[in-house]
Parts: sequence; C-alpha cells; structure tokens
Amino acid sequence: MTAYDSNNLFGRMARGEVPAYKVFEDDNVLAIMDIFPQSKGHVLVIPKAGSRNLLDADPKTLSTAMPYVQRIARAVQAAMQPDGIRLMQFNEAPAGQSVFHLHFHIVPIYEGVAVGRHGGGGQADDSELAALAEQIAAAIG
Amino acid sequence: MTAYDSNNLFGRMARGEVPAYKVFEDDNVLAIMDIFPQSKGHVLVIPKAGSRNLLDADPKTLSTAMPYVQRIARAVQAAMQPDGIRLMQFNEAPAGQSVFHLHFHIVPIYEGVAVGRHGGGGQADDSELAALAEQIAAAIG
Repeated sequence: MTAYDSNNLFGRMARGEVPAYKVFEDDNVLAIMDIFPQSKGHVLVIPKAGSRNLLDADPKTLSTAMPYVQRIARAVQAAMQPDGIRLMQFNEAPAGQSVFHLHFHIVPIYEGVAVGRHGGGGQADDSELAALAEQIAAAIG
Repeated sequence: MTAYDSNNLFGRMARGEVPAYKVFEDDNVLAIMDIFPQSKGHVLVIPKAGSRNLLDADPKTLSTAMPYVQRIARAVQAAMQPDGIRLMQFNEAPAGQSVFHLHFHIVPIYEGVAVGRHGGGGQADDSELAALAEQIAAAIG
C-alpha cells in the first residue's frame, strides 16, 4: 500500500490550513459536512492522526475515533431525523476513496429518497452546508 | 429507537446457538462469512456485546471492536488481494440493516466486478464459503 502523504485535503483541514464546514473539532477528530453529499446531512469524521485508511491506521486511532463517530451519528439522527444511517469507510480508489486520509462517512438515509449526489450532482450549496453544520453541531450530546 | 432484542441471528451465532462460517472468534467478537455476499470474501465482524446498532452501542464496545475490524480487513486484503475494501455498517432497515445486532461489513472490491449479490443473487455456495473462511482465517495476523 502507498504510504500516507500528509499533503492531502483532509490532512490540511485537520491542521487548519484549509477551511471546512465544521460540525465538531477537538484534539482527536474533525467532523465536517461533505461538500459532495450523498444525502442531506452527510458528515465526515476525520481522525487527526495521519493515516491513509483503515489498513495502515494505528489501532489506537481507531479505538479513539469510534465513540466520536457514534456521537456525531447520534447528532445527525437528532438533527436530521432520517429513517436510517449508513456508516461507510473506503479503502483505496476502487472502493471509493478519493482523499487519502482516513475518514468515516455518516450518511443519513431518507425513505423514498435515492442516495447519490445531493441536488442532482456536484457540490452542495454553501449556505445550506453552513446551516446544516450549525444544526448538527447544536445536536451534539 | 427499538430496544435491542437478543433473539436475533447474530446474537444467537455469537452465543454459539447457531452455526456460522467462522473466520475468527474470541470473547469480544465473532467474524463470519456473509452467506449473501456482496463480493467474494465478504466478512462480517460482530461484537459479542449486545446492541442494536451503532447508535445504542456502549462506546467501549465500539473502541474494542475497531482494532478487530482492522485486523480482519487486513486478513481479507492479504487472502483475497482485492483492489480495495469497503467498510460499511447499517443502522435501521431503510439504511440496509436486516439483522438487528451491531455488525460491520468488510466488502472486498475487485476492479471491473460490480458489487452485489455474489453469484447473481441468493446464498453463496456452502463449500466455497467454508474454503474462503479457512483462507481468510489463515491470513489473520
């Protein structure tokens, strides 16, 4: 497997070098809105410790991250009231990974609404992402 | 959310009441072949501690489970040599959950092969599942 290269979008966001629609941040993780959401309220949880994906991560990074993933998923559930939630994590491009810094997708599922590029493809509306980030952040327990 | 009901297929497998194609087992988790695989080598990691899904799990169960998920994913990578791996975990039926005991899907992705019901739908071949379980178990580090 290719080694981790810290010069990637999520690594830079985690270091505060690039802005993001932040839902939550502390020393361990950064949670942000996915700007190409698969559904309304799609959030990414990014452990700050650098690894390419699940396979090369320090096991401690994974143990630390998962309670945050749960906490953010609960906030998505409370704020968005979806009918279900899919947690996904992709390893390598053929599996769907496009940024090579470990991250977890929290995708709310709404009955009768197909999962896919929100808004028919492309990037979500900036003001909507900012409003969703605020709404989900306010629901974090 | 509906409360956890321990009388479910994975709860029963975790208690040894129902057989499974076991890849790994200890006091914390059971890893088995998915009998309706989305691709060849699709493994499920099931924490033995009872919870319905991610949302109601004890955070400690999640922290304990994830290094196992990594270890099994690495074994799937080593044994099956896929081009990528998808980790998925579904919460509630609209999101794809069909057994209401927390479990993680490790789905190997092979370039040029669509993900879906392996073998064109339905249950995988018993002897193939047994052979795959053995092959992946042998690759656990």
